[in-house]
Amino acid sequence: MAQTHSRAIVLSIGDELVLGQSLDTNSRWLSERLLDRGVAVVRHVTVADDAHAIASEIGRASGDAELVVVTGGLGPTMDDLTREALAGAMGDELVEDGAALAQVRAWFSTRGREMPAPNRVQALRPARAECLGNTAGTAPGLRAAIGRADVFCLPGPPREMRPMFERFVAPALRPSREVRARIVRTFGLGESRVAELLGDLMDRDRNPLVGTTASAGVVTVRMRWEGARGADPPRSDAASGPGTAPFWGDGAIDDTERRVRAALGAAVFTPIGGDGDQELAAVVVDLLRSRGERLAVAESCTGGLVGSLITAVSGSSAAFTGGWITYTNAMKAGELGVPQDMFAEVQAGAPGAVSGEVARMMAAGALTRATHEIGGAAGVHHALAVTGIAGPDGGSEAKPVGTVWVCRASGDGTVDCRRFHFGGGRDSVREWSAVTALGMLRLKLDGQDLKLPGEQERWRA
Amino acid sequence: MAQTHSRAIVLSIGDELVLGQSLDTNSRWLSERLLDRGVAVVRHVTVADDAHAIASEIGRASGDAELVVVTGGLGPTMDDLTREALAGAMGDELVEDGAALAQVRAWFSTRGREMPAPNRVQALRPARAECLGNTAGTAPGLRAAIGRADVFCLPGPPREMRPMFERFVAPALRPSREVRARIVRTFGLGESRVAELLGDLMDRDRNPLVGTTASAGVVTVRMRWEGARGADPPRSDAASGPGTAPFWGDGAIDDTERRVRAALGAAVFTPIGGDGDQELAAVVVDLLRSRGERLAVAESCTGGLVGSLITAVSGSSAAFTGGWITYTNAMKAGELGVPQDMFAEVQAGAPGAVSGEVARMMAAGALTRATHEIGGAAGVHHALAVTGIAGPDGGSEAKPVGTVWVCRASGDGTVDCRRFHFGGGRDSVREWSAVTALGMLRLKLDGQDLKLPGEQERWRA
Repeated sequence: MAQTHSRAIVLSIGDELVLGQSLDTNSRWLSERLLDRGVAVVRHVTVADDAHAIASEIGRASGDAELVVVTGGLGPTMDDLTREALAGAMGDELVEDGAALAQVRAWFSTRGREMPAPNRVQALRPARAECLGNTAGTAPGLRAAIGRADVFCLPGPPREMRPMFERFVAPALRPSREVRARIVRTFGLGESRVAELLGDLMDRDRNPLVGTTASAGVVTVRMRWEGARGADPPRSDAASGPGTAPFWGDGAIDDTERRVRAALGAAVFTPIGGDGDQELAAVVVDLLRSRGERLAVAESCTGGLVGSLITAVSGSSAAFTGGWITYTNAMKAGELGVPQDMFAEVQAGAPGAVSGEVARMMAAGALTRATHEIGGAAGVHHALAVTGIAGPDGGSEAKPVGTVWVCRASGDGTVDCRRFHFGGGRDSVREWSAVTALGMLRLKLDGQDLKLPGEQERWRA
Repeated sequence: MAQTHSRAIVLSIGDELVLGQSLDTNSRWLSERLLDRGVAVVRHVTVADDAHAIASEIGRASGDAELVVVTGGLGPTMDDLTREALAGAMGDELVEDGAALAQVRAWFSTRGREMPAPNRVQALRPARAECLGNTAGTAPGLRAAIGRADVFCLPGPPREMRPMFERFVAPALRPSREVRARIVRTFGLGESRVAELLGDLMDRDRNPLVGTTASAGVVTVRMRWEGARGADPPRSDAASGPGTAPFWGDGAIDDTERRVRAALGAAVFTPIGGDGDQELAAVVVDLLRSRGERLAVAESCTGGLVGSLITAVSGSSAAFTGGWITYTNAMKAGELGVPQDMFAEVQAGAPGAVSGEVARMMAAGALTRATHEIGGAAGVHHALAVTGIAGPDGGSEAKPVGTVWVCRASGDGTVDCRRFHFGGGRDSVREWSAVTALGMLRLKLDGQDLKLPGEQERWRA
């Protein structure tokens, strides 16, 4: 038990997990907590309620890592086999733990019930293991040593597992390294373009290590510095006084962040010194709030998704007025004042519902109308309009599925209206459209510009 | 390649997964799909972007199972190492695949862009492996044989991975067992109430096996019959002629479905003979379309989420007119005609923005206004309105966070307006609110009623 925990492995137990009936959220939660405390998780493994498979994974994990955290399989039923598997991996017999039995009994008696007979097995533990008290449920946890590894078994339900992690696992951690992590998010560059711009910052042997992940146009750049336990992170290698780099402290991770930001320029939407975990919608809401400005939306093919992303942000009511879901042409005309004759087919010489003209009329209509509703100085400062063909039907040769016009119009008279082509099916087209609308507003609020992914054509006033 | 796939192992690759920065949803999705087709997954493993670790897991998995599905690590950047790891596990060199390179290039050129240099590595494959085309992104998949195992590598983004699974993996499966799976979805009962009503249908040694999963009020009941390869499922044990059970065929799984439906009654929204995978919104769209009816929405705390769920359904334009996101009181008044004096504080004797009165006015306003826009016989037949306190701020003793009014008003003069209390934080309150609104419309369209989860009070005309 003298060695440090330099590697950890998380095991999740349950038929419902391997059969795909439930989603394992414990592994992610535990990994995040462990990393924050300087212990890196190197593997997650999920196996069924099968004592042999569980014992085999516990044995393998305790050879590969100094810390093993197991969740699940501690319930009272016949398919709860983690106790038996741990005993098998240790070569121990199961014995009844008197204190644990008293605790399980007490859990029921404080709820005015007798302990059901099957729950008695929850007080069993391998002879050399220790029971860990559970205040949120009946299942005690277990702690044991196998070889050089510390093994903790916790119950599967997150509301029992999480407090037991904080109470028993966290204080027992002996991290071998210092870890500093940071996140910067971007919109406007593909993941491969981001990698190209980052160049050797993404070298796999670099410290801090830099990696990217992408989701619907948002590319997240993650930086992680690791050093020896107790070591100070290296000081910045840039000769930057407070005047030149007022937002960063010292240390190589700050220098890495500075280089990442310099390389990716206008695409970075995470504010300097901000919480890198913030989504694009949250950054837009913050930017609007800090200016005292408000937004309205006019949505056709996104059908409310832009509004939904914005209002998912707590505090958005200070920056968001609302809007119109104008899924039919009649709604576009009646609510936003788009002239009916714009909707005629292309053959008739009119632009049609999916056109820059209609997108601009939608945005202008939303801006005017929302400002009128709210009135006067507290009016609406920006409107976002989206009209497009999400598919799978409704495309034509001139306007294939995935054609989307996004228009941002602002009270200062500027209008930014662009045609995009997005691939990947209906959900993808809708998601890209909504995120792109937010991205266009973010560029405006940050005084930046970029050619965006999928951008085909632009109309600007 | 002659043996059957009796066991499968799913590997997920990515630093962001083991470090807890992203949640792996692919393993669950793949397990569910594989099981439906008769291949049981016995293990999920997640490892970091580390070529040695990936190769070692691929090697171990191909010894333990006949089918290995790997997701992630196929992007264009230096931390995408699945290609290299697969080559290592196979003992092959990496070679460039001409057809794959042409596909990656084409992906960019159809978007009017040059292929960035880093993407060239995506056309690499182990010499004896095969590239699998990706129509939703740049990353080709890979297929190889290691010993007796078939190994498929698919990209990590679900939107790319899922269609590639259907296109390449599903047709290649050679299940060792016959499996019949069926799904019935419900809204309106808690998961434990569903379990209670199903009783011994949920016994673990029953075949078909019946299990439940729950998500934001929708409880999904899954039935799975398993038998030897080539075996016929048993015939129904109910003496049902075409007259008595016109919708079911023969077989024990049909009998199980009949019992499940009988036990759960009005809460079941999956139509008889329908696709059990259909979400509530899709069922609502189908019900509306089959009646030639249309819906409008008026959303406050959901901010567009109801509209977004509806318009996520392909073909929803025939059933959905659009609506209003009235996030401010001014929008509720100006757009939907809610009298301004209703918004005063409770102390002043007015109902306030979160009240049954305002919800009813919002629904009535949306119904009238949308019908007027569309006009005449093609008008709008139903409106859904939602107003509530999603939190974390804005609650009071009289109206705590989670208080939500949902109102359904229809052209036949019926109004169903209910107060709910939902827990679980902002996202949860919004999601439950939106799904509940759809659930109330579904009950109306199916001529059913139920007291719904979280329901506190009801006002009906």
